[in-house]
Amino acid sequence: MRFGANYTPSQHWWHVWLDFDTPGVLDGIRRDLDAIAGLGLDHVRVFASWPVFQPNRGVIRPRAVAQLVELVRLAGAAGLDVSVDALQGHLSSFDFYPSWTVTWHHRNLFTDPAVVPAQAVFVRTLAGALRDEPNYLGLNLGNEPNNLVAHNPVTAEEVDAWLDRLLAECVAADPAHPATHCAYDAVWYEEGHPFTPAASATKGAMTCVHPWVFSGDCARRYGPRSVEVTHLAEYVVELARAYATDPARVTWVQEIGAPAPHIPEADAASFAEASLANVLTCAGLWGVTWWCSHDVDRRLVDFPELEYGLGLLRTDNSVKDVGRAVAGTVAAERSAPTAVAERTTALVLPSPERALAAPGGAFFEAWMRRAADGERPAVVLASRAADGATERPGRD
Amino acid sequence: MRFGANYTPSQHWWHVWLDFDTPGVLDGIRRDLDAIAGLGLDHVRVFASWPVFQPNRGVIRPRAVAQLVELVRLAGAAGLDVSVDALQGHLSSFDFYPSWTVTWHHRNLFTDPAVVPAQAVFVRTLAGALRDEPNYLGLNLGNEPNNLVAHNPVTAEEVDAWLDRLLAECVAADPAHPATHCAYDAVWYEEGHPFTPAASATKGAMTCVHPWVFSGDCARRYGPRSVEVTHLAEYVVELARAYATDPARVTWVQEIGAPAPHIPEADAASFAEASLANVLTCAGLWGVTWWCSHDVDRRLVDFPELEYGLGLLRTDNSVKDVGRAVAGTVAAERSAPTAVAERTTALVLPSPERALAAPGGAFFEAWMRRAADGERPAVVLASRAADGATERPGRD
Repeated sequence: MRFGANYTPSQHWWHVWLDFDTPGVLDGIRRDLDAIAGLGLDHVRVFASWPVFQPNRGVIRPRAVAQLVELVRLAGAAGLDVSVDALQGHLSSFDFYPSWTVTWHHRNLFTDPAVVPAQAVFVRTLAGALRDEPNYLGLNLGNEPNNLVAHNPVTAEEVDAWLDRLLAECVAADPAHPATHCAYDAVWYEEGHPFTPAASATKGAMTCVHPWVFSGDCARRYGPRSVEVTHLAEYVVELARAYATDPARVTWVQEIGAPAPHIPEADAASFAEASLANVLTCAGLWGVTWWCSHDVDRRLVDFPELEYGLGLLRTDNSVKDVGRAVAGTVAAERSAPTAVAERTTALVLPSPERALAAPGGAFFEAWMRRAADGERPAVVLASRAADGATERPGRD
Repeated sequence: MRFGANYTPSQHWWHVWLDFDTPGVLDGIRRDLDAIAGLGLDHVRVFASWPVFQPNRGVIRPRAVAQLVELVRLAGAAGLDVSVDALQGHLSSFDFYPSWTVTWHHRNLFTDPAVVPAQAVFVRTLAGALRDEPNYLGLNLGNEPNNLVAHNPVTAEEVDAWLDRLLAECVAADPAHPATHCAYDAVWYEEGHPFTPAASATKGAMTCVHPWVFSGDCARRYGPRSVEVTHLAEYVVELARAYATDPARVTWVQEIGAPAPHIPEADAASFAEASLANVLTCAGLWGVTWWCSHDVDRRLVDFPELEYGLGLLRTDNSVKDVGRAVAGTVAAERSAPTAVAERTTALVLPSPERALAAPGGAFFEAWMRRAADGERPAVVLASRAADGATERPGRD
């Protein structure tokens, strides 16, 4: 079981690429990474900045790629493995678009016949540059590209083609590491959203889930200490597993965090402990990567308020209560791993599924009632339950 | 009379800020600047990249500001003075927007109560950092911000307030150098365009004009060797002078160039010689700054085709015919300056003026007929001619 953090550099956030060569910055990164490793975590997830790495469609800056490799090595020196996200794209409410994709040069990021090949060269270049680093874990296409759909309308078929194309580029450049993709929770909860559960659960080497308690207003609806909130990550993992076609499909809880006021600061530590305890009962879990390593410095303005306090660490690298809670869970898990639960019952999710599966939906609430009763149900799609092939009791 | 070039770095174009600290880049800049100085030019105009300098609304990167100062000093070492444009903003068809002004954070660049103060801090910071450099000429707010109007709707009154606010910031930070602003030709030619001739001709320390032969389809309409094309810069300077309220107002031909196919490459040298000979007859001219120093490297894709060949120099710093022509004119002008023409007649420009003054407009063509007859008419607004205050014959 892998435990890590989404890295948010304490001094410059991900604008750090602009100052990677500025004196003192590498030392700051080293201190951050040491502090993350000090929590007992084994990996970080890091994020390239697309406009900085590929400022022109024809140019991927060699210096930027070298700096990314250097960051991976700095993490290695701290004892951390590294997963890399390529196309940002979207981070913490901000969209980073190269100038060649906006205004007079606006072209759809998912379908344009000039943009997609350029993205392909980009992910191929990163995959090729990183593959020989011993502490490199793999490439994720980009953080929640489904946030970009609002400004780049696209169909599910087009998303599928885009994912297939870019994932194939990663695998071609580096068959030895997993290539993955991810999406924010609309993928599971929103009927008609063009990033589909099937795409999440079948494309790429793992299913990546980001079970945020603000999605579908889960924490506001049920309360920060509710069964619904503390079992949310477990639920989303089981929901994602229902859509997998490969029974051995692995799931990565790539983002989970305690955003105030959805989770009040005083509840963050217990939220972390309970959420981790529950999700660790899931079968086929690769690991959990907390969002995020460091609080966002208040001199960086315009972030949504909840983004500022998500760190396990403060910007001075001191450990927060939630950091201690995660570190404690990780230490306990290392010495006595949680047993995978026998999921002896499976709840059937009718079709169309997504609204039913969202917080407030009938299926979500039925599953949570079972959880409140101490059960750990699996999820099975009605389309599969109906053909009798899978009842899935005790499948794990 | 000042002669210069709009600098376009031969190796990285203005993406050079991303690689300013990359080994070898400064040497490339030095070679570029030496080649520009080798043409006999005395200054360059350089361009900051807003998203690189101010990646977050609350952060102006000290390293970026230091690099800008360093660029000014490198130019000084080559014997060149430097004018600096702050808010890019728009360059050669590309718009560079910080992430805090787009998509989920979209806010009007000209009117938003959080964005404008942040721009104010930015221009004030640059003005303050540059003011003690002995070869520094002054700050221009940004290159043709009226290109941003399409995506940031704004009224003329709002533009006026924006210009007043930002120019005042520059002057407060550095009263000793001129603060200016500029606009593309719509300002003179397009009825209702919110950047007005009055704003160009009265705000800031000089009137900056960009008489491009593709504006209003001038070169296509009249032919590349036509009177209309070779007198265009002279015409626009006189047109701008008509809107000035201060008779001592100085005009800067801040951009002029020979874009193919509007000006075929074989005609570029003669276009440059004729255009410069004509515009140098204008009174109150600060100088002429050619667009641009260097061709754009073909590895940089997506530029409009005409942007690739606008340099006086190739990307290997070899001199093009048009570069020799400009250098020759500059050398001749240094030894025997062109006499300012006595403009003994003034053509009255009726109101509303802008469509009439554009290529194809009745006033434009009347002025050009006089020019074809060897006259050098001034321009006077009907609103001023009517009150009898100014007939302006022989005002120069």
